[in-house]
Amino acid sequence: MRLRRRPSLITAIQQYSDLIVNLNTLLTQPDWTAQFGRQAPLYVELGTGKGQFITEMALQNPGNNYVGIEAQHDIIYYAARKVHEKQVTNVKLLLVDAKQLAELFAEHSIAGLFINFCDPWPKKRHAKRRLTFHGFFNCYRHVLQQPGLVCFKTDNRDLFEFSLNEFADANIKLSNISLNLHRSDMINNVMTEYETKFGAMGLPIYRCEALFS
Amino acid sequence: MRLRRRPSLITAIQQYSDLIVNLNTLLTQPDWTAQFGRQAPLYVELGTGKGQFITEMALQNPGNNYVGIEAQHDIIYYAARKVHEKQVTNVKLLLVDAKQLAELFAEHSIAGLFINFCDPWPKKRHAKRRLTFHGFFNCYRHVLQQPGLVCFKTDNRDLFEFSLNEFADANIKLSNISLNLHRSDMINNVMTEYETKFGAMGLPIYRCEALFS
Repeated sequence: MRLRRRPSLITAIQQYSDLIVNLNTLLTQPDWTAQFGRQAPLYVELGTGKGQFITEMALQNPGNNYVGIEAQHDIIYYAARKVHEKQVTNVKLLLVDAKQLAELFAEHSIAGLFINFCDPWPKKRHAKRRLTFHGFFNCYRHVLQQPGLVCFKTDNRDLFEFSLNEFADANIKLSNISLNLHRSDMINNVMTEYETKFGAMGLPIYRCEALFS
Repeated sequence: MRLRRRPSLITAIQQYSDLIVNLNTLLTQPDWTAQFGRQAPLYVELGTGKGQFITEMALQNPGNNYVGIEAQHDIIYYAARKVHEKQVTNVKLLLVDAKQLAELFAEHSIAGLFINFCDPWPKKRHAKRRLTFHGFFNCYRHVLQQPGLVCFKTDNRDLFEFSLNEFADANIKLSNISLNLHRSDMINNVMTEYETKFGAMGLPIYRCEALFS
């Protein structure tokens, strides 16, 4: 998702500097316990978009810490505004690319990763860019606890098929596979902005959990 | 699939008695090497219907032996007629219920099982009747070689979702998962009658392989 660049956001975003961990000001890996002011199970969303999912997850699970990673400056502003407005204290945001994950989190420090509606990169030659490409698995395994969970959602059938095969081929245990999430028995599904929009059109949403150990 | 019962078939089917192994005449487990007159890798289809799939598989793979299992008298007649007309010598048919599998084949004697478009038993209380219910896995593991493959196809999304979870929960390795088989890269896909009809309507066909070890 790309938004029109609005120069005014660059100044507007500064009011949320307590929420957005700016890598430019960090010389070392963030100390997440210090950032949150407490030790708690840590969950990370890759591509947090406008923040609906992570804000709602944080509200429903006040005992966990949540970090939302988003590469786009113009989008993270809206996530920060949402976190601020809802007065959620257990969310931090990171303005970086998901590829930097292993630099930002200590080994085996994350309880769960959420990958929600990531870019499907439909062209075959771009398969390596998909966040469920097996080339990312060593990185996920490095930062996840043992075992640690990747929860993956998409509305893109081809990407979901690709992802199931990537996980299965790498002997990563799959569970709770859903081919039509909104008609499944899953309770307490927290939706992203994108999911709310596309789910309402009746399009199937795919989801699975992959247990890295 | 149920056909109108035609009494004439009961006599008509007798002309194919060399193709259809009749359990009523067997006191012991069939000796498949003797039945085929040769030793060769053995593949079994559960619910062989009118026989298009198994006939074509046998033609394409003359080095293998194929057994089609079908519980319905009225349907197996058409399968036998097809095998006879195509002069396929490496197919036998069995007029029994798939549940009898373990009585009909020696331990670890089957290289691969095909489950094609089986009854989805959509009601939850009938889940145990679905051929991909985990209650059948011990039986499959008993007759399959180690490792041995189950190839599963269906047009029913809910059944496919159920099946993926049953396999994954039982730690059975999945591979070649397809959520739209006829648009996938799979070459040499042999179609059943049902698949030909529903695939032509543009409906997605789901397929996976499950490796029992």
